[in-house]
Amino acid sequence: MDEFALIRRWFAPLAPHGDGVVLGIGDDCALLAPPPDEQLAITTDTLIAGRHFPLDTAPADIGWKSLAVSLSDLAAMGARPYGFTLALSLPQADENWLAGFAEGLRACAQTAGIALVGGDTTRGELSITITAFGTLPAGAALRRDAAQVGDCICVTGTLGDAALALRLLQSDGWPQTDAARALRARLDRPTPRNAAGLALRSIAHAAIDLSDGLFGDLGHVCDASGVGAELSIADLPASPAFTAGVPTDARLALQLAGGDDYELCICVPPARLDAARQACGALPLTVIGRIVQGEGVRLRNGGGAIVDFSTPSYRHFS
Amino acid sequence: MDEFALIRRWFAPLAPHGDGVVLGIGDDCALLAPPPDEQLAITTDTLIAGRHFPLDTAPADIGWKSLAVSLSDLAAMGARPYGFTLALSLPQADENWLAGFAEGLRACAQTAGIALVGGDTTRGELSITITAFGTLPAGAALRRDAAQVGDCICVTGTLGDAALALRLLQSDGWPQTDAARALRARLDRPTPRNAAGLALRSIAHAAIDLSDGLFGDLGHVCDASGVGAELSIADLPASPAFTAGVPTDARLALQLAGGDDYELCICVPPARLDAARQACGALPLTVIGRIVQGEGVRLRNGGGAIVDFSTPSYRHFS
Repeated sequence: MDEFALIRRWFAPLAPHGDGVVLGIGDDCALLAPPPDEQLAITTDTLIAGRHFPLDTAPADIGWKSLAVSLSDLAAMGARPYGFTLALSLPQADENWLAGFAEGLRACAQTAGIALVGGDTTRGELSITITAFGTLPAGAALRRDAAQVGDCICVTGTLGDAALALRLLQSDGWPQTDAARALRARLDRPTPRNAAGLALRSIAHAAIDLSDGLFGDLGHVCDASGVGAELSIADLPASPAFTAGVPTDARLALQLAGGDDYELCICVPPARLDAARQACGALPLTVIGRIVQGEGVRLRNGGGAIVDFSTPSYRHFS
Repeated sequence: MDEFALIRRWFAPLAPHGDGVVLGIGDDCALLAPPPDEQLAITTDTLIAGRHFPLDTAPADIGWKSLAVSLSDLAAMGARPYGFTLALSLPQADENWLAGFAEGLRACAQTAGIALVGGDTTRGELSITITAFGTLPAGAALRRDAAQVGDCICVTGTLGDAALALRLLQSDGWPQTDAARALRARLDRPTPRNAAGLALRSIAHAAIDLSDGLFGDLGHVCDASGVGAELSIADLPASPAFTAGVPTDARLALQLAGGDDYELCICVPPARLDAARQACGALPLTVIGRIVQGEGVRLRNGGGAIVDFSTPSYRHFS
């Protein structure tokens, strides 16, 4: 099957017209007509087998996660998902793999109401690059450079689940338990927080999505905003599966630097905390610290003492 | 050097603010404010070492070509270049390589006035995915589905240069001549025809850029427009270097199916041919055939007889 037939067969169902998509896959470019007077938020992420997902990951989960990580970036800006392009490199045109991948991609796209508008398929090491577009009113974006001293630092959901799953996978003997499966699902099928991001747009001062680990990602907020952060490590939210399965000495590293959480970290003025909680609906929002004067991220234990933490976030080429 | 430092150091100079770029590299998303009431044209292309460019290609030429192929797609729609994202996979963080790559990318971006607005850097097989955005008034795009019976089929520039360069490279003994260097430059540094594409927007009925070879690419125009095409093979434009160096029996295959030309193929009503030539300025525009009723691309020799041609365009996974 040639490149063109591949694209048509597996990805055409993801590319509806209408809703601002003037021309989808099939010409030199796609044509979009974004809502008038809105700005565009754009993000690009590459996922490579064995680096951004375990080699044994199911094709449907790879499809889901490839889009979910970009949707998470749109969520962190408070942008409404609009469209995406897919650049897919494959060692060979495996129909079973493509069927699974397209199904996972479609499922994730459907939950967010985002359309595939273009792409490229080529032979190479398995690699997926998605560029996603969202729309939002001018000046409405949740940026990482607008945290203010006194803001409550909050995170959605729980931290460390995906990192613990990866650690268990890399150790001998993956436990065949419901808890382990729950952790693996968090690694393979992260839930981008787009509804929360949209609802928080007029409430939070700043936001970032947690892809590389809270410690490093919050550090970017501090750097960009010219502020410091103090975190209370006793308040970091954890799932029951995480709490049950994590070795005590690994807990902090996994929650702060494990990466792959795809939760939102937001900075909210204390007076808007209730509004922020309401904006998140059923999704838990936990206060984990405060924005302070100074620079960098400091940690305090339950007793208020400073805790040393020097494990860096996951970084390529480091 | 870590991922973040890499991006800042080499690519920050390509990411100017202003001109509709509200927020460039450094947040979860870039923010763009496209011209009000204009549509967006979007295209994605992946280049992989040894597949889309020879393994010995200079890093600066890889940088140039990576963006040029996307600019060529924008040219074919008649869209004004606006911004692009870069997803770069590298086996290792080689500073010399990055310096060259960024310089070539910058040079190409500068000629087109297009800004880098976001990206991702990861470790892997050398692979470059660029998603480029252009803007154009609603309804103004040059599409491939609007060719009309009677249109003159025209191409800009010359055909086959890059394909001959690749053939010479793959044979024993690359000739150290000015002609060979000229051919290699056409392979390594294609010139996207953006000025011509913009100027032809109100003149041509349809357009496509020639990336996979005229025969296949024009076939896409025929399929999308529900028409056929007749080409006069004696009229295919060739450079002096191509004419001097091409083996007679390879000429047609290289000009029709070699790929990597990055010229525009446009369908123009005969009454607008002079206007089309003027729109192209110093860039030669050659009439090579006519749009006819029916389907598919037929070839005729200088005497008017049908010529059989069955070499397909370059296709991945074929």
